[in-house]
Amino acid sequence: MTVLVLTAEQDVTADMVVAELNARGVPVVRLDPADLPDKAVLSADYAHGDFDGHLSVNGHVLSMTGLRSVWVRRPGEPAAHAAHASPWLTAETRQALFGMLYSAVTRWMNHPGSAEQARHKPWQLRVAHLSGFAVPPTVVTTAPRVAQQFVEEYRDVVVKSASGPPPGDPTVSLPTTLIGPGADFSGVAAGPALLQRYVPKRADIRLTCVGSRLFAARKTAAPGQIDGRYGDTGHLWETTSVPDRVAKSVQEYMAFTGLAYAAFDFAEDAEGLWWFLECNQGGQFGFVELETGQPIAEAVALWLAYRRPGSDTRTA
Amino acid sequence: MTVLVLTAEQDVTADMVVAELNARGVPVVRLDPADLPDKAVLSADYAHGDFDGHLSVNGHVLSMTGLRSVWVRRPGEPAAHAAHASPWLTAETRQALFGMLYSAVTRWMNHPGSAEQARHKPWQLRVAHLSGFAVPPTVVTTAPRVAQQFVEEYRDVVVKSASGPPPGDPTVSLPTTLIGPGADFSGVAAGPALLQRYVPKRADIRLTCVGSRLFAARKTAAPGQIDGRYGDTGHLWETTSVPDRVAKSVQEYMAFTGLAYAAFDFAEDAEGLWWFLECNQGGQFGFVELETGQPIAEAVALWLAYRRPGSDTRTA
Repeated sequence: MTVLVLTAEQDVTADMVVAELNARGVPVVRLDPADLPDKAVLSADYAHGDFDGHLSVNGHVLSMTGLRSVWVRRPGEPAAHAAHASPWLTAETRQALFGMLYSAVTRWMNHPGSAEQARHKPWQLRVAHLSGFAVPPTVVTTAPRVAQQFVEEYRDVVVKSASGPPPGDPTVSLPTTLIGPGADFSGVAAGPALLQRYVPKRADIRLTCVGSRLFAARKTAAPGQIDGRYGDTGHLWETTSVPDRVAKSVQEYMAFTGLAYAAFDFAEDAEGLWWFLECNQGGQFGFVELETGQPIAEAVALWLAYRRPGSDTRTA
Repeated sequence: MTVLVLTAEQDVTADMVVAELNARGVPVVRLDPADLPDKAVLSADYAHGDFDGHLSVNGHVLSMTGLRSVWVRRPGEPAAHAAHASPWLTAETRQALFGMLYSAVTRWMNHPGSAEQARHKPWQLRVAHLSGFAVPPTVVTTAPRVAQQFVEEYRDVVVKSASGPPPGDPTVSLPTTLIGPGADFSGVAAGPALLQRYVPKRADIRLTCVGSRLFAARKTAAPGQIDGRYGDTGHLWETTSVPDRVAKSVQEYMAFTGLAYAAFDFAEDAEGLWWFLECNQGGQFGFVELETGQPIAEAVALWLAYRRPGSDTRTA
């Protein structure tokens, strides 16, 4: 039974997990969907009242009946590297590859359907609230008046993007930014703004969830620091324990979203309360593992390698 | 309680359903996501330990707590009509709109997650088989040898696209085409081919499923006709009854995929057996209603208008 890793050629995080799988003797096939159909061959057979499919990559043949799990890491666009690449070839290749993988009975980290829905930040806030997390008051709006009222009510407010930084090269960084009631809100009408009550924090928390295993790391914040992703705080990530209430909420969040892997970001306030900021279904873990020594790559490998016949599988 | 219809401005099928809703006094808001944020305003509030959101379109304000159902018909790309349209604005607007709608407790026809997965034609064949339909032997492959072997085994084989015709203007039609063992299969290596045993048919069947209601229509095929979508057969669509076995399979297919609406295409062979060809989650029904008089628009309207407190809703 083989683990399929869908990711680009250059992916250090995938390398770490593949090394763990290799060390355990678990067969792995690594494929960048961008390499279809030129460097990899696919066949799905719905011909004899049953289904089987095959992927041939670098001389390895993976049968869909021997598929243990699929790790959707950072896959390229299907057929993007093809000699005659086109939007249509990408669409056809996506249909063929994922249509075949969805037809297999296997475990997904994460299933593309669950991942796609889980990317919606406004929905994350709703699910986080329903899961029992503390969530800072937030508004997502295209109405300048609503934005202004929100800032007048909460005074210290940060503005974020909903979908991440603008695409393109060079990358534009878009740190979470503090604004006050004096700001000019007219630009809100040109595109949705996500405004959130600022949580004065004494630390950033990164909680990585792998199946049912939790790895929490804490980094002391610099005084007045807004966005923990930018700037040096003079502190490193250190392992911390997970409050019971948070562990229970994480479990509910994962069950609700159908995710097998997720990276949660929290702000720890002066009372020690963890405020939910966001949950990234594809969040990196290499930097946390490096600084804390938490065995996250191993946990991912163990999840992918796990076999319990007839359970934890998803045809859909 | 209001029905939200997400579709482009020009949409005769939506007009038919909206007329049915109007006739019943059911409030309707119609929005093309392309008109955000310039012609419609959105605000989602996660601020008071609870959630509410609002959409303002043409002077109508729709509250998320008053959202009865969402019909995802033919929506434009979010913010595509904006004065400063960009891929990033589209991404931000999609997050804001669908993040808000996913946060509401409502019924979907169809939920975008279910719709996206249901578009995968190879997966449709698997689900169809598991649901008990008769499915013609099919292979999806990028291996010329596999394609050739398939054609040698089944002799009369049709080739189709997996994802539909190539995008672009002018539209390229891509009818299902009959091929034989003498064909040149080398092109298969350049992009996936979907090959299917040809079903000699005496009629095309279009079965439209709306919730639990089934509308089947039958059109007698012209002798030797391959693709019922192209060319005049000299026959019209006529209402036909649904065999019990097929009705049961449709029910299972809908449950498995989570769809509320779907249009199934079958080929009826000389023995009267219906062979599953495909299932289009967004298939048109206007042409069938026109020729058969089947009240499909009314059925869609009734499904959208239906209220049963606390049930049939989906937050996810």
